[in-house]
Amino acid sequence: MTMTIFETTHRDTTTNARLGLLHLGHGTVETPVFMPVGTAATVKGIHHEEVERIGYKLILGNTYHLYLRPGLEVLERYGGLHKFSSWNHNLLTDSGGFQVFSLSGLRKIEEKGVSFQSHIDGSRHLFTPESVIDIQAVIGSDIAMCLDVCTPPEISYKAAKEAMELTHRWAQRAIIHRNRHETMKGNLFGIVQGNFYEDLRKASAEFFNEQDFPGLAIGGLSVGEPKEEFIHFLAHTASYVTKEKPRYVMGIGSPDYILEAVEQGIDMFDCVLATRMARNGALFTDDGILVMKKAIFKFDQGPIEKGCTCRACTHYSRGYLHHLIKSKEMLGGMLATEHNLTYFHRLMERIRTAIANNEFASFKRACLERFYGA
Amino acid sequence: MTMTIFETTHRDTTTNARLGLLHLGHGTVETPVFMPVGTAATVKGIHHEEVERIGYKLILGNTYHLYLRPGLEVLERYGGLHKFSSWNHNLLTDSGGFQVFSLSGLRKIEEKGVSFQSHIDGSRHLFTPESVIDIQAVIGSDIAMCLDVCTPPEISYKAAKEAMELTHRWAQRAIIHRNRHETMKGNLFGIVQGNFYEDLRKASAEFFNEQDFPGLAIGGLSVGEPKEEFIHFLAHTASYVTKEKPRYVMGIGSPDYILEAVEQGIDMFDCVLATRMARNGALFTDDGILVMKKAIFKFDQGPIEKGCTCRACTHYSRGYLHHLIKSKEMLGGMLATEHNLTYFHRLMERIRTAIANNEFASFKRACLERFYGA
Repeated sequence: MTMTIFETTHRDTTTNARLGLLHLGHGTVETPVFMPVGTAATVKGIHHEEVERIGYKLILGNTYHLYLRPGLEVLERYGGLHKFSSWNHNLLTDSGGFQVFSLSGLRKIEEKGVSFQSHIDGSRHLFTPESVIDIQAVIGSDIAMCLDVCTPPEISYKAAKEAMELTHRWAQRAIIHRNRHETMKGNLFGIVQGNFYEDLRKASAEFFNEQDFPGLAIGGLSVGEPKEEFIHFLAHTASYVTKEKPRYVMGIGSPDYILEAVEQGIDMFDCVLATRMARNGALFTDDGILVMKKAIFKFDQGPIEKGCTCRACTHYSRGYLHHLIKSKEMLGGMLATEHNLTYFHRLMERIRTAIANNEFASFKRACLERFYGA
Repeated sequence: MTMTIFETTHRDTTTNARLGLLHLGHGTVETPVFMPVGTAATVKGIHHEEVERIGYKLILGNTYHLYLRPGLEVLERYGGLHKFSSWNHNLLTDSGGFQVFSLSGLRKIEEKGVSFQSHIDGSRHLFTPESVIDIQAVIGSDIAMCLDVCTPPEISYKAAKEAMELTHRWAQRAIIHRNRHETMKGNLFGIVQGNFYEDLRKASAEFFNEQDFPGLAIGGLSVGEPKEEFIHFLAHTASYVTKEKPRYVMGIGSPDYILEAVEQGIDMFDCVLATRMARNGALFTDDGILVMKKAIFKFDQGPIEKGCTCRACTHYSRGYLHHLIKSKEMLGGMLATEHNLTYFHRLMERIRTAIANNEFASFKRACLERFYGA
């Protein structure tokens, strides 16, 4: 039977938003939670020590990247990614499926799994529903994900249905294989698919509700579709996914998408946006994104954001950040990363407070108005 | 009259090495001292907070770079580089001369100064002995340097002599101009030149000994000449430079060059080597340089260097560093920079201890044997 790793502690009275606790191998995590992405055994541009100091207790690693480099032999000898990368809190890993579909070459989907070519050296590999569980067991993931078939928007109904059905068959194989791993019992999540077809989304949610998974992800959203489409299919799918389990939307991380998802009772998110934009000198504040290379910041002696407790804001000015970004100095990306991760951590804290106070609807509205303008 | 900013506290009985204290605007610095280079208002790849935590009390900034970007208008509004870059210890700046000679285009040396073209945007500028003092006053340097004429090895005696004589005339103009700046009285250093001609080196040293400078640098060494040449001209020049003042050799920073210089009673050094090599994945240890991308480190679970207190060594393994460098992750350069700066700080501490114990000669020998092999 499925282990219970999640409890809902409060439901907002104004929306479907909810507070919860996720009990994982490396400690308990408050939800809704945003996870920074540490693709290749490091959250880019920041020490794990700082990620921890900001307050994060759960980060994401990418199975595809870790499998290719450093590789399983290295991770095995270290006893997993926690020890290898000196991260003592929780790790979630994706299945590698999404990266196979977005990064690798010459991929071929068959019943047994997906074969692909490494984007690093062109070598050929095969991921199966079973092998990605074995890989995530070596990584030592606190939450592991099933292999799924990722599809782009605007494919035919027939193709979407076939991909979904294969995803379902892979999920059933995954459960059987997971049960062979003592350590994986409580932490393998299923991924609802169904592309942008309402009945397929419903069917996939209902299928996964019946399976023995401790948590469920909604996959295949935020893959290039218009925002209205995202919101519609998120709400639609979420209405069918069981509320008993933690619910995770993969790959979202702008404030508006996070707020929409929280409103639909989603508990978990991850995205590279915060860290990738930081390295390009784009900094998140309550009043929107500051593009630091702009000349208006040259003489600006104020902090990036008043009240922010990160080192960029407490030690430096906008003018200094402007200089670092213009000069392409590493410290620019380092400070911006620290700031953006602090921003998102604080956003999630405020979201949780708003839910606790049963005022998420008004919080969301005020937040969006301030961030994106009237 | 020259202010006294330096005191010799101990002389090694086995060599010319000595211990001293340098009393500067932002606190006292123990010598011999190595200065990390913070070219453009940041030591590349590391927070100033970490530079401070390692133990550094004096870093170098490059006048040429700072003058071009962020520029004097920005630095003036901030009240100087200390505040702009959040560095509360001492700053030494070079005069900009060396960068004009090595980085800029279309440079022209005249009696009044050197005109050049920015390497950033091609704009034209003029540095004079007076203007570089004004610039360094805006920067707020705790030690400022005179504009000098930098010459490569293997120029004619005539050209070397003319360059030296112009350097001397510029130095005299610099003193007159410095005296107009209340804040600059105690901190402008002269730079001995003379290329690779013994009599010119002697003449330049004797000239500068007579001038009203609180400290002297030996310039124009380590500019591409063979190591034997460097050692010879360093010892030769050092033998004529007054021992009453702090003595600085510009642009050296490999352990062997530092040890040679300390042996000749040099008190100060700076170099980009430690930080630049770090970003390329080359790490300094007592047993030599580790090139971290090498396959031999892939499974190496030991620290970069046993006993080192930096975060790279206390939190991570050689195998992890290998992975980061191979994957071109920012954290690789960040950790390597922290390690190398820690290495050089510790090397200087051990050098000072050896001098205090009157065993610098044997310390140097053991150090070189271990680092470079028998």
